[in-house]
Amino acid sequence: MSLYIKSLENIINHFRRLPGIGPKSAKRIVFYLLKLPKKEIRRFAESILDFQEKVKFCEICFNITENKICDICLDEKRDKSKICIVEEISDLFIIENTGEFRGYYHVLGGLLSPIDNIGPDELKIPKLLKRISENDIKEIIIALDPTVEGESTATYIKKSLKGADIKITTLASGIPVGGDLEYADEITLSRALSDRREI
Amino acid sequence: MSLYIKSLENIINHFRRLPGIGPKSAKRIVFYLLKLPKKEIRRFAESILDFQEKVKFCEICFNITENKICDICLDEKRDKSKICIVEEISDLFIIENTGEFRGYYHVLGGLLSPIDNIGPDELKIPKLLKRISENDIKEIIIALDPTVEGESTATYIKKSLKGADIKITTLASGIPVGGDLEYADEITLSRALSDRREI
Repeated sequence: MSLYIKSLENIINHFRRLPGIGPKSAKRIVFYLLKLPKKEIRRFAESILDFQEKVKFCEICFNITENKICDICLDEKRDKSKICIVEEISDLFIIENTGEFRGYYHVLGGLLSPIDNIGPDELKIPKLLKRISENDIKEIIIALDPTVEGESTATYIKKSLKGADIKITTLASGIPVGGDLEYADEITLSRALSDRREI
Repeated sequence: MSLYIKSLENIINHFRRLPGIGPKSAKRIVFYLLKLPKKEIRRFAESILDFQEKVKFCEICFNITENKICDICLDEKRDKSKICIVEEISDLFIIENTGEFRGYYHVLGGLLSPIDNIGPDELKIPKLLKRISENDIKEIIIALDPTVEGESTATYIKKSLKGADIKITTLASGIPVGGDLEYADEITLSRALSDRREI
């Protein structure tokens, strides 16, 4: 005899697949749901169904939207000459929340990774190049993770744009603000040194 | 302009209400869902709806079940003379998983707490007393948290059973197996001392 009735086992298995949720937290969440009014649980499930039905990807930049084009791409007041390239929509949100960037975005949906068979065509790189060729873009800001995959994706994009009159920049590397020199790794520290700025 | 489209904001708000999930983890989970096939997301929502529809509480012990009576209460091979009293269904699962107890359970659904206006009638205490009076119970094992609420609930149950020929026991207090004397608090240590056993 198993204690886990089928519907309980099923919901726990779904929760434990989510990032940051192990088997113990999954059980804890489900036992919490058990104490909620049925209506509340239904609303939770409906919010997921609603999300699944309504969320689409912007046809220009691949940000999420409930329409064809996202609110950022529709915003005429932004700087049309700049595109910031990010890996995921979550990165777009993070950069947008700084309030420092007023251009447009392009979400690649991943990074180049020959090991995982992810080439340019698996990402939104062809759409990016087309978008650049059809618009008057002056600067591309590559805001990808400073990892091997991030840097090789950046290099690939840079090569693809060779000859075009476009400034290509990337995020500065260095010690995090409020961070501790002692905890910085050597590569970060040497980058921070070579990119030092006058104050 | 908000980055958060309505269906996104809604689903994030639902996730962040779950135990152990803060605003950052809620976002992380939702961005993870975004990368799943729509079918997968739908299955997740359906597992919640299914759970909400099918799960009921056992009419005898208030464990969860998809029927009227749970599998434990239906199990004729268990020891009918013993009832283990727990606060929540999750406690029942933990005790059942030890494999040490072969009697039946009774889930109170909470603990007495005058501050929160939780009296015996808000819990399954009247049903417990009725159940005991109608069956030939020889021992009640009170497995509640060793907190003020847990102990006062235990005391209340004990008083209510005064005069009945029933052995009332509770879980042993002491140093956790594998634990360190140094880290045990004084009350636990003094209980462990007074409850010392011969070896």
